[in-house]
Amino acid sequence: MHLSFNQQLKEACQEKNNYLCIGLDINPEKFSKGKISILDAMETFGKEIIDGTISFCPIYKPNFAFYERLGSQGYALLERLVDYIDGRAIVIADAKRGDIGNTSRQYARSILDTMGCDAITISPYMGREAIEPFIDNPEKGVFILVVTSNIGARKIQEHGGDVDPLYKKVIQMADELNYADNIGLVVGATQTDIMKDVRKLSKEMPWLIPGVGSQGGDLEKSLKTSHDKGISIINISRGILYAGDGSTNAAIQAARDYTNKIRGIVCNPVNC
Amino acid sequence: MHLSFNQQLKEACQEKNNYLCIGLDINPEKFSKGKISILDAMETFGKEIIDGTISFCPIYKPNFAFYERLGSQGYALLERLVDYIDGRAIVIADAKRGDIGNTSRQYARSILDTMGCDAITISPYMGREAIEPFIDNPEKGVFILVVTSNIGARKIQEHGGDVDPLYKKVIQMADELNYADNIGLVVGATQTDIMKDVRKLSKEMPWLIPGVGSQGGDLEKSLKTSHDKGISIINISRGILYAGDGSTNAAIQAARDYTNKIRGIVCNPVNC
Repeated sequence: MHLSFNQQLKEACQEKNNYLCIGLDINPEKFSKGKISILDAMETFGKEIIDGTISFCPIYKPNFAFYERLGSQGYALLERLVDYIDGRAIVIADAKRGDIGNTSRQYARSILDTMGCDAITISPYMGREAIEPFIDNPEKGVFILVVTSNIGARKIQEHGGDVDPLYKKVIQMADELNYADNIGLVVGATQTDIMKDVRKLSKEMPWLIPGVGSQGGDLEKSLKTSHDKGISIINISRGILYAGDGSTNAAIQAARDYTNKIRGIVCNPVNC
Repeated sequence: MHLSFNQQLKEACQEKNNYLCIGLDINPEKFSKGKISILDAMETFGKEIIDGTISFCPIYKPNFAFYERLGSQGYALLERLVDYIDGRAIVIADAKRGDIGNTSRQYARSILDTMGCDAITISPYMGREAIEPFIDNPEKGVFILVVTSNIGARKIQEHGGDVDPLYKKVIQMADELNYADNIGLVVGATQTDIMKDVRKLSKEMPWLIPGVGSQGGDLEKSLKTSHDKGISIINISRGILYAGDGSTNAAIQAARDYTNKIRGIVCNPVNC
């Protein structure tokens, strides 16, 4: 029997006893052009991070912007990194796509079939037609932007006021579309004041939580509130990749440290 | 003196006496694998369309989804097509990007610098931080999604009701950010009932109008209302690329026909 994406996500987390998602935002600017090309340096770094963390990290989330920065060669590097993970962890394409139906269909095939990622982040501004082509296959999933961690987003996402903010409508739309159990929500870690409310509305849909680390979100509160029902995964990008002295070892150690923190907060024998 | 993106757009349209934007949504599915590869067939088709229309078409808008469908090789094809246009027309990257600041900065560099496009379409869901990195350079522009042509979008874009719909807040945000005269708006051609209102609010910001052709939008009404102040450009994708018998000649003829229609509606000696 094939599991739905949300079930696969939960199993992957439980198997590794961890809710960490490593954001593979490998920044070309961090590599000076030396004996090897920037592309080669990025590839080595990416593979070393994966090698050093795959035994305990259940999810990786490459951010397309950092690869597209180097054009088609960067895009090819991204393909190689996804291939390198090769089913040993869930891969969420952080691509924030979303367009009318016939275009979203092409994006869905690009990212879920051609590239072989397991899920993708989606912007809800264009409505349900922008989401539907991505959820045809129950084994592949989407994470829809609900509330993000940046300040300027509030003006848009909270439009409608306290009683009827836009993000609630987005959650409702996500819930209606979640018939195949393959939709999750992006909920920024800085949004602790509304998290309880968001968890209630989002029922058991999993959350992808960015904003812990560089953006100052609250790890403990985010995890506890979100795990009240369903699960959440904590994305850390810069806080791992460029931790300490910027070396691969420092990054792997930071991933271990975050894992220990996460386990300390939510992984007791009952729920992990 | 360097012109702002919006000035360049206006000049390009006036020079060619046309407001047509050809959507280069070259669909791999339209090419059966014959003696030459699908990629080669797409490249030949794309270049023939450009060759046959560049003398009268001021703007091309490649849709990234159709190229990404073929992975990094498709992305490389897109790069070659942008290079092929080589400044002879404005190129709008239809990529619907939008993310937090440090990621949007990478996308801006990817698309406006590495790939060399003149402008990009942007989703406003993540607020002003998602837009700002794209407008640093006044010579490069963005088109922000305001009201799109698909039905499901209304639930989101009109959230807040008749008096205070979300799309008005998006226009207001765009207007505030338009200090360098390089922001335009995406306004679907099916939205004729609110176009007058949208034009008033959007002042002289140019519009990119999709939805004429396959989606059934009203060309004449869209053009007349939008040209009441500022300019608009009419995007046609499938209605040109797959017109008639699907041949390159039929596509070029369809582009000529749309050009004649557009000229008949807005290009009199006073404003063209």
